[in-house]
Amino acid sequence: MTSNISMDFRSLAKLISKIENNRIGSEQDLINLYKENSETVVIGITGPPGAGKSSLTDKIIYEYRKLGKTVGVVAVDPSSPFSGGAILGDRIRMSDHANDSGVFIRSMGSRGSLGGLAPATIDVLNIMKSIGFDVLIVETVGVGQSEIDVMSIADTVLLVLVPGLGDDIQALKAGIMEIADIFVINKADKDGKDRLIAEVNMIIQLNRHRFKWVPPIVETVATENKGLSALMDQISDRFSWLKSNGSDVKKDKILNQFKQMALDRIGNDIMKMLNSNKIFDKWTADLLAGKSNPYSAMNELGNNLQIKWEEKEK
Amino acid sequence: MTSNISMDFRSLAKLISKIENNRIGSEQDLINLYKENSETVVIGITGPPGAGKSSLTDKIIYEYRKLGKTVGVVAVDPSSPFSGGAILGDRIRMSDHANDSGVFIRSMGSRGSLGGLAPATIDVLNIMKSIGFDVLIVETVGVGQSEIDVMSIADTVLLVLVPGLGDDIQALKAGIMEIADIFVINKADKDGKDRLIAEVNMIIQLNRHRFKWVPPIVETVATENKGLSALMDQISDRFSWLKSNGSDVKKDKILNQFKQMALDRIGNDIMKMLNSNKIFDKWTADLLAGKSNPYSAMNELGNNLQIKWEEKEK
Repeated sequence: MTSNISMDFRSLAKLISKIENNRIGSEQDLINLYKENSETVVIGITGPPGAGKSSLTDKIIYEYRKLGKTVGVVAVDPSSPFSGGAILGDRIRMSDHANDSGVFIRSMGSRGSLGGLAPATIDVLNIMKSIGFDVLIVETVGVGQSEIDVMSIADTVLLVLVPGLGDDIQALKAGIMEIADIFVINKADKDGKDRLIAEVNMIIQLNRHRFKWVPPIVETVATENKGLSALMDQISDRFSWLKSNGSDVKKDKILNQFKQMALDRIGNDIMKMLNSNKIFDKWTADLLAGKSNPYSAMNELGNNLQIKWEEKEK
Repeated sequence: MTSNISMDFRSLAKLISKIENNRIGSEQDLINLYKENSETVVIGITGPPGAGKSSLTDKIIYEYRKLGKTVGVVAVDPSSPFSGGAILGDRIRMSDHANDSGVFIRSMGSRGSLGGLAPATIDVLNIMKSIGFDVLIVETVGVGQSEIDVMSIADTVLLVLVPGLGDDIQALKAGIMEIADIFVINKADKDGKDRLIAEVNMIIQLNRHRFKWVPPIVETVATENKGLSALMDQISDRFSWLKSNGSDVKKDKILNQFKQMALDRIGNDIMKMLNSNKIFDKWTADLLAGKSNPYSAMNELGNNLQIKWEEKEK
């Protein structure tokens, strides 16, 4: 056990598996364990495949370890419909840090997410905060809507881009430029770097009036350890900024987290109910028989599903 | 108006905007308009940024136009939290086909999606089917969970990969290998092609026992029109296969579509209710005051929210 973390990693891994397998059944554990801990630094790392996110994560872990900080990493993979789990093996990533008792790494699939965000990801981050990790890193491998949602719970999002990935509007097409708190131009020794930086700068300028925090651009070559200290400085600046200006940001993130969690919980309950009433089977049979259509079905759903909020005695 | 399409494109564009702005208010239009049309070929195109999906889409449109087929395209962008809409301008893409009355192209954002899938995407595809398009193409720009969900409504999914995008396990990391009905190795004139093909082949072999349809691999250089006829042959083979073996596939897709639509509709209703009761505000205030935690809040939600299915007279 690492001194400032109040749970050994074996128990933590077991608890995470329990949550992944049965979230509702783990609710009491989560209620008991939850502790606000605003000292934890939560970093999100996202960007297109091939941008070098894993190498960057690896180097950031080392930087924090040099400072004696404990680091927890959650890597979110789009799920495989076949395996139903995270594809990126923990084995591949753990190897470098396997003997370091201050680092905990876990891959999680996003399967079963009903609210768009992998709900267990929030739980796991909350647990790791509660038990006292200094730094948490969430890394996503996709660049879609669910990844944007995942990133919305991180305090500081690094968007990792790489020169020469695509055509002129590659950057725009990624569609996630706006969630970046820090732009990391990785593999900055490759051709096309200046052009990419110019493009990113243009986007920052275009949106300047909307920012409270104007995202800086940092160049790195993660595999050669270049640019890491500049990046760490920017992360540290961002956190200082959050401490003095971040109460709105924090409130938004809590609100967003509540909405995602509520949607997931309610969605699961309702899906279970509709499944057990065989509503979907009936709709599908009717549609295939030409007796109905999806929009009449939705109309029926709206008419027949009764939803009420009733405050009960606690 | 194109001969076999029963709605002019101006009206279609207006209807799509109406649906995007107010889905519940458009329900009656959708009920009236919906018509089963199993003749429409629905192709999904996905893959990482920089793989050349747009060029490929463009060339596939030309191929179908040569055959006299009408083509509708929906490009799904991860939404910008700033603009709330699709970033990839229709202007950029429309240019080539702007004067072709047999092609309709629309970009759609995925914002406001509660079920993980951009729900309006399903509606728009359903409308375009109903009014008689021969071919529909859904192109996503992300490679995350929402994109996997979008693809689950296409009959045939092309996963576009490109040599040299990343490290050894780039292909695995994309995490969407398993949704491919056809693997397209685009930019097949680049270094690293053989290695990528070997990797894809390995994945196909590993999962062989799970396939009903074994996905073929096609090499293309879309910008130079290379490999297009081989690709069109494979798409055509897939559709012949679906016609004789696809009833399970079709049923699964309908079921999935129902679930996504239901989740979105219910989610919206419930969010509206919770918002109007100021539940989220109360939870957030309590949390910030240290009087509650997210998991107690979820427990309260489960206790206080009453959900019932009651069949009403029609």
